[in-house]
Amino acid sequence: MNIKVGKQAIAEATQKLKNWGRWGKEDQIGTLNHVMPEDIVKAASLIRSGKVFALGIPLDRTGPQTGLFGGRFNPIHQMLATGTDAIAGQQDWNKIRYADDTLTLCVQGATHWDALGHIFYEDKAYNGYDAKLIDSRGLSVLGIEHSKDKMVGRGVLLDIARFRGVKWMQDGESISNDELDQCAKQQNVSIGRGDFVIVRTGQMERCLAEKDWGGYAGGDAPGVKFENCYWCHEKEIAALCTDTWGCEVRPNESEEGINQPWHWITIPIMGMTMGEIFQLKELADDCEQDKVYEFLFVAPAIPITGAVGSPVNPLAIK
Amino acid sequence: MNIKVGKQAIAEATQKLKNWGRWGKEDQIGTLNHVMPEDIVKAASLIRSGKVFALGIPLDRTGPQTGLFGGRFNPIHQMLATGTDAIAGQQDWNKIRYADDTLTLCVQGATHWDALGHIFYEDKAYNGYDAKLIDSRGLSVLGIEHSKDKMVGRGVLLDIARFRGVKWMQDGESISNDELDQCAKQQNVSIGRGDFVIVRTGQMERCLAEKDWGGYAGGDAPGVKFENCYWCHEKEIAALCTDTWGCEVRPNESEEGINQPWHWITIPIMGMTMGEIFQLKELADDCEQDKVYEFLFVAPAIPITGAVGSPVNPLAIK
Amino acid sequence: MNIKVGKQAIAEATQKLKNWGRWGKEDQIGTLNHVMPEDIVKAASLIRSGKVFALGIPLDRTGPQTGLFGGRFNPIHQMLATGTDAIAGQQDWNKIRYADDTLTLCVQGATHWDALGHIFYEDKAYNGYDAKLIDSRGLSVLGIEHSKDKMVGRGVLLDIARFRGVKWMQDGESISNDELDQCAKQQNVSIGRGDFVIVRTGQMERCLAEKDWGGYAGGDAPGVKFENCYWCHEKEIAALCTDTWGCEVRPNESEEGINQPWHWITIPIMGMTMGEIFQLKELADDCEQDKVYEFLFVAPAIPITGAVGSPVNPLAIK
Amino acid sequence: MNIKVGKQAIAEATQKLKNWGRWGKEDQIGTLNHVMPEDIVKAASLIRSGKVFALGIPLDRTGPQTGLFGGRFNPIHQMLATGTDAIAGQQDWNKIRYADDTLTLCVQGATHWDALGHIFYEDKAYNGYDAKLIDSRGLSVLGIEHSKDKMVGRGVLLDIARFRGVKWMQDGESISNDELDQCAKQQNVSIGRGDFVIVRTGQMERCLAEKDWGGYAGGDAPGVKFENCYWCHEKEIAALCTDTWGCEVRPNESEEGINQPWHWITIPIMGMTMGEIFQLKELADDCEQDKVYEFLFVAPAIPITGAVGSPVNPLAIK
Repeated sequence: MNIKVGKQAIAEATQKLKNWGRWGKEDQIGTLNHVMPEDIVKAASLIRSGKVFALGIPLDRTGPQTGLFGGRFNPIHQMLATGTDAIAGQQDWNKIRYADDTLTLCVQGATHWDALGHIFYEDKAYNGYDAKLIDSRGLSVLGIEHSKDKMVGRGVLLDIARFRGVKWMQDGESISNDELDQCAKQQNVSIGRGDFVIVRTGQMERCLAEKDWGGYAGGDAPGVKFENCYWCHEKEIAALCTDTWGCEVRPNESEEGINQPWHWITIPIMGMTMGEIFQLKELADDCEQDKVYEFLFVAPAIPITGAVGSPVNPLAIK
Repeated sequence: MNIKVGKQAIAEATQKLKNWGRWGKEDQIGTLNHVMPEDIVKAASLIRSGKVFALGIPLDRTGPQTGLFGGRFNPIHQMLATGTDAIAGQQDWNKIRYADDTLTLCVQGATHWDALGHIFYEDKAYNGYDAKLIDSRGLSVLGIEHSKDKMVGRGVLLDIARFRGVKWMQDGESISNDELDQCAKQQNVSIGRGDFVIVRTGQMERCLAEKDWGGYAGGDAPGVKFENCYWCHEKEIAALCTDTWGCEVRPNESEEGINQPWHWITIPIMGMTMGEIFQLKELADDCEQDKVYEFLFVAPAIPITGAVGSPVNPLAIK
Repeated sequence: MNIKVGKQAIAEATQKLKNWGRWGKEDQIGTLNHVMPEDIVKAASLIRSGKVFALGIPLDRTGPQTGLFGGRFNPIHQMLATGTDAIAGQQDWNKIRYADDTLTLCVQGATHWDALGHIFYEDKAYNGYDAKLIDSRGLSVLGIEHSKDKMVGRGVLLDIARFRGVKWMQDGESISNDELDQCAKQQNVSIGRGDFVIVRTGQMERCLAEKDWGGYAGGDAPGVKFENCYWCHEKEIAALCTDTWGCEVRPNESEEGINQPWHWITIPIMGMTMGEIFQLKELADDCEQDKVYEFLFVAPAIPITGAVGSPVNPLAIK
Repeated sequence: MNIKVGKQAIAEATQKLKNWGRWGKEDQIGTLNHVMPEDIVKAASLIRSGKVFALGIPLDRTGPQTGLFGGRFNPIHQMLATGTDAIAGQQDWNKIRYADDTLTLCVQGATHWDALGHIFYEDKAYNGYDAKLIDSRGLSVLGIEHSKDKMVGRGVLLDIARFRGVKWMQDGESISNDELDQCAKQQNVSIGRGDFVIVRTGQMERCLAEKDWGGYAGGDAPGVKFENCYWCHEKEIAALCTDTWGCEVRPNESEEGINQPWHWITIPIMGMTMGEIFQLKELADDCEQDKVYEFLFVAPAIPITGAVGSPVNPLAIK
């Protein structure tokens, strides 16, 4: 499908995929509503070996940010008290020797969840909330704090890079709905309501191997096609997660004037959150080995009041 | 036991409880080594209803910090892009409408894990590491990143306030080892190797009810006695967590010149991490109701390189 | 005059005092245009003793901020390298021993200049610029950087507290145009085109004496009446500065629905910047002693690109 | 002189140039003591045309920092309130329409003063203060706040690049004492006690012309030779300022094991502060034109309590 995604395709998707009101007019969590308690019970039964895979990248100055999007920067970690102070006797007044510290970060700068207030469609956010409710003081609606107990369920890895037999996909290569289905089939898993689907392109591994993030944060990337929003809707997944900066393929398939078309639909129209910049190598290697691509997925958002997202260290527990 | 904890009691505890070298001389995670994969598998079987309890407090300016410890402050959340910018047309150049944000926080300012580099004993950190390795550039040893896949296991709530039949314990009231054992017995749970033990004093609930944090961050508090470090050691627990700022009773039981005696031992001598400022009300109410005080506990630390701790939103999954 | 300032008085002032276009339609500095090079030469001749008075308050956690205006906070100073690191040998790799640091501050949190983009009238900023040009990315017009070489000229202190014979004025006490003129007369100075007029109320000295900032940042205060905007306009002064948080009297003289009426006019309509939170005690004491209330005033704004103001340490040189 | 500066040359300089105790054992400002009130009066008489030159570079993300020295970064400016919020009606509750903002900066990241606590010699700072007094809480001695009313005096530009007949000096080219004297002579100025001497290499102009800071912040650079510390001492200047990151030539002339030898002496031994990253083009062009290289120099440090320096927008007033 090489037809460019234009305003009409966008408009059509807004008609077909709109979840506004689906879970009540005050709903703040969208497709996370797909996860039912019984799904969590079932997912718990996937824990068989007790192996834990941490999918978060390190938060430090070596991260991928290069100033994008109004100035994203890598995390800045600073100390408030140190061991050197302690041994110099500078803490003796306090009768205890200690270290302490601070962190300044872009909420979406490393591995993170997007909140539903992250993207607008025209003048509206998800569920019809007015975009103006998201001002300099933060998000008075759709902040990440609403999802604080929701990021738990069945996780499924779809390892597209391995499915293609490559170490990593190339920038600009796109993943169709069909390929997702075929990959799932080959991996012997099926995707269902309430799943957290994790798509591996290998892009991050390429950057780490080349020791150069390059355009990782906001430049060209492998990723899902625009049509993927239909797939997510039909499968009723809870969220999509990837090892890229923004899930969808870049350069986008869209016409001039539409940047990140999949985001235009998934967040504000469908109310689907996404997990980005996930580190998948160890998990993928393990899945390849035991041929089990499903697990309990626990990735609690930090309840930062009124935030557009949350840093997260997602865990896949097998 | 109203004998004050003095230098001798401290010295004795360092002899009896020292775990340096126990898990290798390069170990960085201490008592988290007590958790075995099979413990995680067993803990997963505790998930029966699919209920999820988020134990993290909101990160915002209404938090408990008042300038303690070299200047701790409550989280500062700021926007990089807003819905008001979007609807004013100020993002049209970018062909997408979005919000984005930053956070500046004290790593231990809200619900958090302590890293093992947080407290020193004389000139040393846990496992004998020189305290000078923790300088203004951060922790080159014992940083929180080493625990990124370790905060998973069986969680047990010991609801001391309920055991005492009070809404909340008073500041200065201390919890003995004996009381912990009796409470566990009454709750029909036993504590074992690798458990994450969560002690509820109710102090946070009092502050929230009174809408005044008062001295919560660093002032007087209910908490465990110094002898608790022996209890933790004997039980071989993974970590202790509470709804207070610092786990141990304040005013401390110690002599002049020793601030936070339990911390002097638990972190640098035993290598036991702790979780603090946990919000326990909903979990405790539920446990009271179904009489089940154990659950899968998943509280992934964010891998902030060289950090003294991590903000966390711990989940108890039943 | 106890008639409340209402919408009509505001509207009338916007008619009579509007400087939009006066210095060209692209002007970014407003009444700072009143200062001519010859004024600076003349002001230099006021330097007779070589005494320098620094009018900036210390930037640290003891400042006046209490969370006002979307969350203003006092400056946060943190180290990147320390002497304790140095003597512990932790900098040996760098072959030099050093300290280094960072600062996080609200630009208007301590002694500061307001930029002309600080206040809007309806949907417009000074000179008719659209308020939307001031978005989350900063000020694309009217930022403080435009004034970087303009904060030099003749300074005149009007010591109203001394004129009244009090140590400090009380909160809520207002200063009329007439009183400014009488004070100038008694002090034997006249106010003219291009002057930087500094009004002393003594409020800051009261706070420092009482060791309690109280409502200093945004609460009640002594200050100029609304009519003062006419006085500033007629005298053609460059800027007004005071030892209070916001120059004008609080509670304001205005009707319900109008907060800080003097600001509504001075910044967006007249294009007059102001200096606030000036520490005036030493200067005022000296002026009292030598009866000379004029001096060279040099208070360079830091050229923070697109900023709403600048921290400043203003100097009065006599 | 191509002999490398070694430990012996350093030791010799510490003997000959040490100003410890010269201005009292509690002195905190070192060579700024050289400026006398009468020098300021005299310098004021240099103001003849009323021209003001602002020597500070813009504080924004386009600055020179690249992560040096424990992680220096360019200034981060963020909004707390915007015009877009205002016109969306989001400030109506406050009855005034406004913008507000914050800044996070490395104190020495752009145009700045070094404080005397910036560099240590062995375990000591200037005047014999113990380096341990400079810990994670800041500088309890030798902080920049002590200089808040001291940065005023006669400024003299020594335009070495023009003296050499080049647009800019090349990295690695060094300036001898002899050349400084010859340049002064050709410019028809003499350097004396209490002067603020500003040396122009043109390096910054090269970076701006090439639109690439390259190694400006901490890499190779033109600058003064080590012997310059003798020159500064003999002339009894107040401070040295330049358009480079660190005044002295890089690669340094020193032996292995000594980084920035001139700094080892000037700050901790002599107690001489320095101004760095000054933008000199406009001033230098004007001096070339009117052949007047002296002026009133006013560059007030912001009194950041316990800081290693201060951002500054230095003014040369002619």
